[in-house]
Order: sequence, then C-alpha cells, then structure tokens
Amino acid sequence: MKPLRLTLLLFALALSRMGFADDLLPSWNDTAAKAAIVKFVNRVTTEGSADFVPPADRIAVFDNDGTLWSEQPMYFQLAFALDRVKALAPRHPEWKNQQPFKAALEGDMKALAETGEHGLLELVIATHAGNTSEEFAQIVRDWVSTARHPKLGRPYTELVFQPMLDLLTYLRANGFKTYIVSGGGIEFLRVVAEELYGVPPEQVIGSSVKTKYEVRDGKPAIVRLSEIDFIDDKTGKPVGIHKFIGKRPIMAVGNSDGDFQMLEWTTSAPGARLGLIVHHDNAEREFAYDRKSAFGKLDRGLDEGPKRGWTIVSMKNDWRAVW
Amino acid sequence: MKPLRLTLLLFALALSRMGFADDLLPSWNDTAAKAAIVKFVNRVTTEGSADFVPPADRIAVFDNDGTLWSEQPMYFQLAFALDRVKALAPRHPEWKNQQPFKAALEGDMKALAETGEHGLLELVIATHAGNTSEEFAQIVRDWVSTARHPKLGRPYTELVFQPMLDLLTYLRANGFKTYIVSGGGIEFLRVVAEELYGVPPEQVIGSSVKTKYEVRDGKPAIVRLSEIDFIDDKTGKPVGIHKFIGKRPIMAVGNSDGDFQMLEWTTSAPGARLGLIVHHDNAEREFAYDRKSAFGKLDRGLDEGPKRGWTIVSMKNDWRAVW
Repeated sequence: MKPLRLTLLLFALALSRMGFADDLLPSWNDTAAKAAIVKFVNRVTTEGSADFVPPADRIAVFDNDGTLWSEQPMYFQLAFALDRVKALAPRHPEWKNQQPFKAALEGDMKALAETGEHGLLELVIATHAGNTSEEFAQIVRDWVSTARHPKLGRPYTELVFQPMLDLLTYLRANGFKTYIVSGGGIEFLRVVAEELYGVPPEQVIGSSVKTKYEVRDGKPAIVRLSEIDFIDDKTGKPVGIHKFIGKRPIMAVGNSDGDFQMLEWTTSAPGARLGLIVHHDNAEREFAYDRKSAFGKLDRGLDEGPKRGWTIVSMKNDWRAVW
Repeated sequence: MKPLRLTLLLFALALSRMGFADDLLPSWNDTAAKAAIVKFVNRVTTEGSADFVPPADRIAVFDNDGTLWSEQPMYFQLAFALDRVKALAPRHPEWKNQQPFKAALEGDMKALAETGEHGLLELVIATHAGNTSEEFAQIVRDWVSTARHPKLGRPYTELVFQPMLDLLTYLRANGFKTYIVSGGGIEFLRVVAEELYGVPPEQVIGSSVKTKYEVRDGKPAIVRLSEIDFIDDKTGKPVGIHKFIGKRPIMAVGNSDGDFQMLEWTTSAPGARLGLIVHHDNAEREFAYDRKSAFGKLDRGLDEGPKRGWTIVSMKNDWRAVW
C-alpha cells in the first residue's frame, strides 16, 4: 500500500473510532444528557488520565422499573402478582373476603392502593412463596411469554427502553460491568434480565424472600418461604450493592426517589462519577408522572439531583426513541 | 514460510495446546484426582460434545477455610477475632469476667471451645460490628499484613494451597468463573480474596452481619450492625449460591461436612458435574484431621462422598506441593 493511501486509511479508522461512542447511542438525541454520558465514559476509560478507572472497577448500576422498562399504570411484577392471585384463588376461598386479595380479585385498584405498601407486600409474598425456585422461574417465564400490558396491549418484554439498551451496550463496549439493582423481586427479574438486557443472573440484585435448602426424595431444591429476606429499595439499594458487589459503583441510573440513596452512594465518592435520573415527561410517547405518582414517585431527586451534579434525562427531549 | 515448516509449526502448536491443561496443574501429582479434574474440564469445554457447557454456565464454587488455605489450629478469622478482643479490651472492662471474652483474653482455648458455636459467634459479632465497612476493611488489611500463624510463624497469606491456586488458574483459563463460598465473613474475605486467589469481591460469598446505610455529616457510609444477616454454612451454602449467583454450579470444592450440601446441590443436577473434597491427611506437610476435628470436621463426606461420585483429594498423595 502506498504511504498516502495508508495514511488516509489510518485517518479514516481514527475518525471512525472517535465516532464509535456516538454510534453506540443511536436512540439518544444530541443533547447535554448524551454529552454528559460520553464525556464521563471518555474520562474513566482514557489511560493515563487522572480519572482513569481500571475495568474491574467500572461498575454501573441500573434501577429496573421506570428506568429500563416502563412501570405504569403499575409495576409489571404487581401485574404478575395480580394474575397469580387469580390463578391461585380456587385454592384460597378465603381470599374473596380478605384484603388485599379481595381488591386484587375484583380489580379494585383503589382499594388495593389503600392497603398500602404492606398490602402489596402481602400480596407478593402470598403469591410468590411455597414453590421451589425452579418452579417459580417457570411460572414467571410462562407469564412473561403470554401477558400483555393492560393499556398498550403489547407484551411487557417489548416495553424496554431502547436508549437504555444502547447505554448498556455502550458501557459494556467500554469495559463496564452492568448491574441491575431493583426494588423488584430478584428471582422474578433474573428470569428476564439476560434476554431483555444482556445482564446475567449474577448481576441482578433485588428484593427477596428467604429460601431454604431441602432434599425431597433424594432431590435437592431451593424452596421459597413466606418471609421477606431483603427489601432492595431506598437505603436498601446501597446496602444491596455493598452486599452483592462489595465495590462502590462509579455510575448509577434511576428514575425515582427509591433510587436516591443509590445515586448518592455512587456519586459522593472521590473521582469521576455519573448519576442519571430518567424523568418521565413524555405523555405522548410513554407516560408523564413524577412528584405525585403512586409508582416511581420522583420528588426529592428532581429538587436535589441537579445540585448534586446528577443529570436529569428528559425522555421527551433527550430520547430519539422510547421502546 | 515453506509449507513443511508451517505444518511443523502448527503441529507443535497443537501439541503445546494439548499439553496446556496438564502444565497448568504443576503442583498436582499424576494421580486419579488430577485425571478426574482434567477429564471433567475437557468434557464441559469440548464444543459439540453432549457435555459441553457454555462459558456463562461454567460456575465453580470453592470453600475457603481448609480448602484454599489452612484452618488449623483454628480458623484464621477466629485468630483475627481473638486479636480484636485484645485490642478492644481496654474499652470493655466487663469482658474480664464475661465469657466468651474472658477465655479469649486469657488464651484459654478449651474454655473458649466450651462456649460453643454461640460463643464464637458472639465473639465475632462483638469484635466485628460498629465500624463502617471501609474502616473494617482497613482493620482487616492491617491485621493480615502483620499477623503470624501461631504454630508455623508465617503470615497467614502464605498458607494458601498452591495446588488450589493451580486449579483456579486452570479453570479460569478454561472459561470458568470461580467463586468462593465460605462460612467465614464475607467482608473479611473480600479484603484478601483478590490478592490471594484472584477472586474479585463480587465473586466472594460468605457469612454476614446486617448493615445499614447512613449519612453522617453529609458523608454516606455502610455501617456494620451487631446482628447476623446470613450464615453461609451447610444448607446455607446452596442458599447463598442461589441468592448471589442465581445459577447452579457445575463444580464444587470443599473439605468439610459444612460443604456437604454445596457439593450435593452442585453434583445432583443433570450433565457433567465435579465434586472434590480435600482430605487433610498430611501431618508431615500440613495437618492431619477429619472425623473428630473441632474445625473442618469431615465425617459424612468421607463416607458418602465416594458413593456420590465425589473425588476425595489426598493432600498426601495427590499434591506435589502444599503451600
């Protein structure tokens, strides 16, 4: 090859490499949010720079509901729990007259909401316990493959945010290890996380019930019990991150005040840090909600986030596509 | 390059690749134990074979005390706890007359043993709690860098088994993800596991105290509480594996009956599975103990292991070197 042509080729290669970062975020508009992401990733991956972070410490944590997929009109796992109540009702005639099950069976969302967090938790525990973990995973797989979103009529698995898939891919291409840190159930999420997000089970952290190891007829199994083990929400998120990963992340992405402490824990350490909050301000393409929402309430984060250097991502302005 | 020379080179390369497996286990004698390991790894890594396992599912779990490093005359973390009792005693005058602290301060190992598991647990909790996780990690680092084994006079970090380091390296070279699943404290182990074994914090599973997230003077921290969160021993080991990894391992290595259920859970699934039990039968080079030992008791595993297809590894006969 002639020297000139070689030079041109190398130049073209260099250009294409410089453009690589942007190509990997095709569903993001060219706004400040995207620029903040690219700038951060460049800072921590540039060898020799003061902000360089070795790959082993490039930990990024993502909330799930409302961050990686939609969460309105209710958390998808709650829709699963409601369907489970209906499926299990014949075995529990007492549920007809007993809250929160009565409300669930009658589809009375107002009465259900009135049972509060405790009611929802009771619902989830009653419908999720007793099975072995393998049986439970199969129940989730079956549900996910047939259930449809009540308003949009589409499978829940299609309600994953494309810009977030871009972001996960972009981070992994830059040596990051991507984790899900969700208030949702760990065993529910692990069934779908690999296929939907490319996140393997060992990188999913979530709320859990206690389990026990049991050998029945010589066959060992993990059995799910009717007792909460861990609530991976609010202050529970940094606790879960510490327990499962044992390292402090350098990047955190959430969308509600349930993610506040996770972002605080991540971004208050020295060095380059990135905190992102997805703001659902897009009624036309998805949903619009924040300070007063029953699911995914975002209030403190909107007020304090910008002062803390977190980037508020507008779904309306910063995202080229949604699903 | 001439065709003949190229052929010879490729042939030499192929030969060296075939010999690769054995070269990576230099501290193992050429006995049945080593053959079982190599055969298993070949089975699960040979593409197209019925036993092939994709890299993402090549999970190998290792006990720590007595499996990766020595555990006599007491668990190393217990030696740490005893040293902590001494360091903290000036702040706790009541310990002079209160078991298990009195025994610990007087070095009365018999009286300490008589306080049983409960006493040891109390000791560990009292000496390990109250600090932030970062402070605790620093205390462990300081201790590890100065403490010496009471009988051998060497740093604990030198009492790592070379054949196990070989095995970890060999497995990783074959696409395995190697985990530690220990009855010892997760935050204690994570301080040393990466340097000693090349196992990063997120691949260490162990017993834990509860922690809470706290913001003091605007600075967030994980604070260790005086309450047990999880005991990663016996039936707790499969529970811990399920919780942290969410996949069933294909290989498990232990040395005591505390590892029995971990091996059972691992080896009773379909497909190629490997269970190894390290038998401490080597008083000349290390220690000899099994059915009646206070630490690392191995009784049921010796009786049932071979019937279950597990390989009993004789430190005396199967290992060329120990540390």
